[in-house]
Amino acid sequence: MRIGILNSGGDCPGLNAVTHGVVGAAHKIGWEVIGFRDGFEGLLPPGDYRFLTPEDTMGILKLGGTILGSTNKGHFSAKIGVGNVTEIPKEIIDRARRTIDQLEIEALIIVGGDGSLTTGLQLFRQGWPIIGVPKTIDNDLSATAMSFGFDSAVTTVVDALDRLNTTAESHKRVMVLEVMGRHAGWIALWGGIAGGANVILLPEIPFSLQKIADFIKNRDAQGQHATLVVVAEGAKLPDGELVTIDKNSTGEIRLGGISEQVAARLQELTKKETRATTLGHLQRGGAPTAFDRILGMRFGVMAVNLAKQKAFGRMVSYEAYHVDSVTIEEAVNKLRLVDPDGEFVQVARAVGICMGDS
Amino acid sequence: MRIGILNSGGDCPGLNAVTHGVVGAAHKIGWEVIGFRDGFEGLLPPGDYRFLTPEDTMGILKLGGTILGSTNKGHFSAKIGVGNVTEIPKEIIDRARRTIDQLEIEALIIVGGDGSLTTGLQLFRQGWPIIGVPKTIDNDLSATAMSFGFDSAVTTVVDALDRLNTTAESHKRVMVLEVMGRHAGWIALWGGIAGGANVILLPEIPFSLQKIADFIKNRDAQGQHATLVVVAEGAKLPDGELVTIDKNSTGEIRLGGISEQVAARLQELTKKETRATTLGHLQRGGAPTAFDRILGMRFGVMAVNLAKQKAFGRMVSYEAYHVDSVTIEEAVNKLRLVDPDGEFVQVARAVGICMGDS
Amino acid sequence: MRIGILNSGGDCPGLNAVTHGVVGAAHKIGWEVIGFRDGFEGLLPPGDYRFLTPEDTMGILKLGGTILGSTNKGHFSAKIGVGNVTEIPKEIIDRARRTIDQLEIEALIIVGGDGSLTTGLQLFRQGWPIIGVPKTIDNDLSATAMSFGFDSAVTTVVDALDRLNTTAESHKRVMVLEVMGRHAGWIALWGGIAGGANVILLPEIPFSLQKIADFIKNRDAQGQHATLVVVAEGAKLPDGELVTIDKNSTGEIRLGGISEQVAARLQELTKKETRATTLGHLQRGGAPTAFDRILGMRFGVMAVNLAKQKAFGRMVSYEAYHVDSVTIEEAVNKLRLVDPDGEFVQVARAVGICMGDS
Amino acid sequence: MRIGILNSGGDCPGLNAVTHGVVGAAHKIGWEVIGFRDGFEGLLPPGDYRFLTPEDTMGILKLGGTILGSTNKGHFSAKIGVGNVTEIPKEIIDRARRTIDQLEIEALIIVGGDGSLTTGLQLFRQGWPIIGVPKTIDNDLSATAMSFGFDSAVTTVVDALDRLNTTAESHKRVMVLEVMGRHAGWIALWGGIAGGANVILLPEIPFSLQKIADFIKNRDAQGQHATLVVVAEGAKLPDGELVTIDKNSTGEIRLGGISEQVAARLQELTKKETRATTLGHLQRGGAPTAFDRILGMRFGVMAVNLAKQKAFGRMVSYEAYHVDSVTIEEAVNKLRLVDPDGEFVQVARAVGICMGDS
Repeated sequence: MRIGILNSGGDCPGLNAVTHGVVGAAHKIGWEVIGFRDGFEGLLPPGDYRFLTPEDTMGILKLGGTILGSTNKGHFSAKIGVGNVTEIPKEIIDRARRTIDQLEIEALIIVGGDGSLTTGLQLFRQGWPIIGVPKTIDNDLSATAMSFGFDSAVTTVVDALDRLNTTAESHKRVMVLEVMGRHAGWIALWGGIAGGANVILLPEIPFSLQKIADFIKNRDAQGQHATLVVVAEGAKLPDGELVTIDKNSTGEIRLGGISEQVAARLQELTKKETRATTLGHLQRGGAPTAFDRILGMRFGVMAVNLAKQKAFGRMVSYEAYHVDSVTIEEAVNKLRLVDPDGEFVQVARAVGICMGDS
Repeated sequence: MRIGILNSGGDCPGLNAVTHGVVGAAHKIGWEVIGFRDGFEGLLPPGDYRFLTPEDTMGILKLGGTILGSTNKGHFSAKIGVGNVTEIPKEIIDRARRTIDQLEIEALIIVGGDGSLTTGLQLFRQGWPIIGVPKTIDNDLSATAMSFGFDSAVTTVVDALDRLNTTAESHKRVMVLEVMGRHAGWIALWGGIAGGANVILLPEIPFSLQKIADFIKNRDAQGQHATLVVVAEGAKLPDGELVTIDKNSTGEIRLGGISEQVAARLQELTKKETRATTLGHLQRGGAPTAFDRILGMRFGVMAVNLAKQKAFGRMVSYEAYHVDSVTIEEAVNKLRLVDPDGEFVQVARAVGICMGDS
Repeated sequence: MRIGILNSGGDCPGLNAVTHGVVGAAHKIGWEVIGFRDGFEGLLPPGDYRFLTPEDTMGILKLGGTILGSTNKGHFSAKIGVGNVTEIPKEIIDRARRTIDQLEIEALIIVGGDGSLTTGLQLFRQGWPIIGVPKTIDNDLSATAMSFGFDSAVTTVVDALDRLNTTAESHKRVMVLEVMGRHAGWIALWGGIAGGANVILLPEIPFSLQKIADFIKNRDAQGQHATLVVVAEGAKLPDGELVTIDKNSTGEIRLGGISEQVAARLQELTKKETRATTLGHLQRGGAPTAFDRILGMRFGVMAVNLAKQKAFGRMVSYEAYHVDSVTIEEAVNKLRLVDPDGEFVQVARAVGICMGDS
Repeated sequence: MRIGILNSGGDCPGLNAVTHGVVGAAHKIGWEVIGFRDGFEGLLPPGDYRFLTPEDTMGILKLGGTILGSTNKGHFSAKIGVGNVTEIPKEIIDRARRTIDQLEIEALIIVGGDGSLTTGLQLFRQGWPIIGVPKTIDNDLSATAMSFGFDSAVTTVVDALDRLNTTAESHKRVMVLEVMGRHAGWIALWGGIAGGANVILLPEIPFSLQKIADFIKNRDAQGQHATLVVVAEGAKLPDGELVTIDKNSTGEIRLGGISEQVAARLQELTKKETRATTLGHLQRGGAPTAFDRILGMRFGVMAVNLAKQKAFGRMVSYEAYHVDSVTIEEAVNKLRLVDPDGEFVQVARAVGICMGDS
């Protein structure tokens, strides 16, 4: 039995943890794993792939990026975004199918975002044995409450805010930090809350620069001279206002990103020194956090379970949770022990960890 | 209106985030907050406490430990553990009550573990306005799926395993790491999975040293000469076996902790160099992770909500979640946007973060 | 006896370690320390200052920024740069002098860069008891081989390169990272070497974009598809070439910083996906490394020593060192033990650390 | 031309940076590099080795441990310590020599500590082309002012102290941290200074537990209820006093390491809660700091330079430096630019980094 796996779209901390989980769990039940290189491109004949054994994946758990490579361009690229689905040409699909058949792949795990999963759905509808694993660093896929990579990105944002805070306080400045989030502001929201931001601007909540300036001036009046602003890259300046920044003394005209535009306007409105920083690709790179390593592995193990059950056309998900309350009486004196037969122990066993009892 | 807050029991990364959330949310609705020092001890007349304003809690989000101080001893200490509830003497309770009455405290938030919450329950039954926030770094309280501090502890374990792994591979050794978890092995299980451990030993799963030795020898035969073993402090040597370790050349006899005993026995059984390390207090200290900062703040904000609703005798909790699957068709093309009226935005607003729209 | 201390110019990791060293060492010999706020501005009547005791500086060792505040603007700001010295008006100096006299300051420690030290020199020449501590995150002051903050900045660059490297390899990209270094390229050079950069561009070494493109294409031909480029902010495009970047699909014209210009040209010349990132203020913020904490403390302790000796007009420095070789015979069998009377133990004792012998 | 390299003795962060420097610099001048596995053992026929190219060492700069493997046991192990030199049997040397001759190794770089370098010296005296690179995480080799790995170990100690400090303050405890340093206390001294320790105990300075207890009680009286004690593993209890620790309630008798013994005695003398932690192997593992990556690479490049010059019997060293002072007048207005022909640029070029000018 053979499983194929590929990574598609932008890279994301935890991709290798998924691969680790898939290879470990497959090996445990005696299945082989073939990893395709550079996303769907690796499917095109003669096929760009390698067999993956537990030895190959030893030590990859902590690595950022993807050992398989990925691409968000190429023959299979669909326009990402609601309603923007592009069909992949039949000729491309037929060619790729030949590789699948020749290699006798019985399940193909696609680790990708909305666009790549849409491609996967098209393939599934044509009879391919597709299993999806959601990959969205922005954490904006509605069918999963949490996806790997998000916690790592938030951690990077929090670290950046901790740094900017000290320099903001030393110089009584406004610091504006631009973070990822094209459509959804989760990274800005979580990162801003955990990083002690004073202002958070999201694509989902229209904002007024004048109101923010008033908020900053009010803080100043109360002796709080430093202000941290987090802005999601997809946040929109009110009424399409576009700020022209004259940055160089030589009189060059330039238009910056959203953080530079917000910073320029806030400096104008508040008369305070304001600086912009864009985190950019620093959010994608780097080692995954412990949480993302585990979530990635859990997703990988679940994907193999789905393959075993031939539950094609399904995507691994993470069920919703939220903060709530219970009576203290219900709460005390009941330890929540590890269930020796529960999901977590199963994950550990599935990837070949010895629990000392067999 | 006045809320009191105290931290009780061992310290835990994220305690200050709870305080930050409570103070921010209370201030937003015009309530005062009084922080009692050193747990319940601060309640004894004349009272050891301070008023807490948003200025006081600025910057504490990222600090480990507790700015309020804590104790797991003193006049209120209950024996922790299922069935081991000790009643607090009436005389002590009456004295503490006077402080509460004099300061006109209308809700008392207790951030503590099973023992401290049991004390809180006793007080609630006597008419105190108690609200509980669960604090358990071991994450072993059944009424909450996740508690703050756990992610930080797991992260510390993963960092330690990353370090031990490089030295294990350089020297072809077995490294045994002892982590927290007296009754429940969650830290060992999550930390071990994320840190790439090869063997994980829990209080919940009886193990055989001979089986582990066989597993290690089998790895060696396959060319994997380094093995990482994670053992929870509460894991029990099979059949009460107690290992005597002759560590010094001078012939001193000593008995080590569980990691040293496991290491000594595995070295004997496998003839491989084996080293033990105990993480100990390094797991409690240090800055909370982004996840724990947010969870702590969410717990704090929820505690103030409960106070506002006079929902006394309740404890904040975190509802269960798990990895599952959905059809890809349901999954794609549906962005999960931030709900402008949802819990997360409410938490941000509750602690006074400006969202730019008001 | 009273010492004054102020921080001037841009903030730098380790500033608080200097303050910690000064306060600890002064307290040990029975001197008081007064910290002036916001650089030289704090000297203007009525004086903006606070007394600093060891209790005040407890825990500041690890904090980024400066607890004293700083400014690189104001009444005392000199144009920084060789030959660009601006004299401070006599009237300003006379007013500031009154504060010094009233507070009976017997030595004034100025922690600042080239411009601030030049101001300090002007004051010293007019009879002020000035002692300098060099602060240059770029590490470009010729009179000291190393200054605090530099190691922290290099560490931030290395962390960023580690992150960019994973995403570069996953996507076979060229990543261009812009780091600090207006006149001197030390941060780019050290950071680039330690971070595994493939190309390093400095203000001191004129470069050719064509040669770099050839280098990248050559790497590609050898199967190395990812390339990391580090460019100091002060590096100059060859022959004053200025690149216009049409970034938006809406046709907006913009001119980016040096990293964006280099990236745009390299993408053009190599036809490879190229991305630019600017680290900016992330390099100044954040906790100082262990090395910078120690160097800052050593500088602070030395500054108090100079004050005690009335060695005014002097600046603390760090003597040159370099990699060399010796015969192995000279090298072996000679342990380099801690000298109980050497500088390091003296620093420890000077700030009040107990060595267990008195 | 061929260079051999081996790592001998305990592992140390930065070992792979040395290998990276050697391979890069050798490749640049057209020499081949052979890496021997597991220290001198790899020299025994038929030889356990691999050829190392720049591709092989790509990405190893940031890895802890050693890709070559090491051992501090085996046929070549010398008793380490002043005056404890053990000669390697002639028969072993002759066998190893055959491997060197067959592979036509023209220089053999030994990266090792005092014992391994002593073995190297013996080989050099018998005509082997030996070049030494000092490896001592304790930084206790007299012939080099600094060795790689030390900064990483100090950083680990500082991180641990930051963690212990928060828990010490929350619970008003004395925390005792045991760090490496068998003969020399450098790690304890640097780590303790940078980590804000209150007490530092070294092998070089005899101490009195009673004096330390008085110091702690004095702190308590001044309201400083938390105390951090750093003790080097080689520090000696006064007058050979050996503390018996009755740790378990079951009455087991045990003798702990130096930190546990110091903690037990201090708790007895001060009546304060005291906890001991031993860092152990966590200090050796983990990624090297930026400083150690650079120092390792510089050592590696210098070793190849020595090989090119046939300067056998020599060891790479790092010349002394210290904190001093200069006149401010000498200091200002002189930028310390990167020397385009200086050591650092040479190191960058030597390992194949493109500086954009050729």
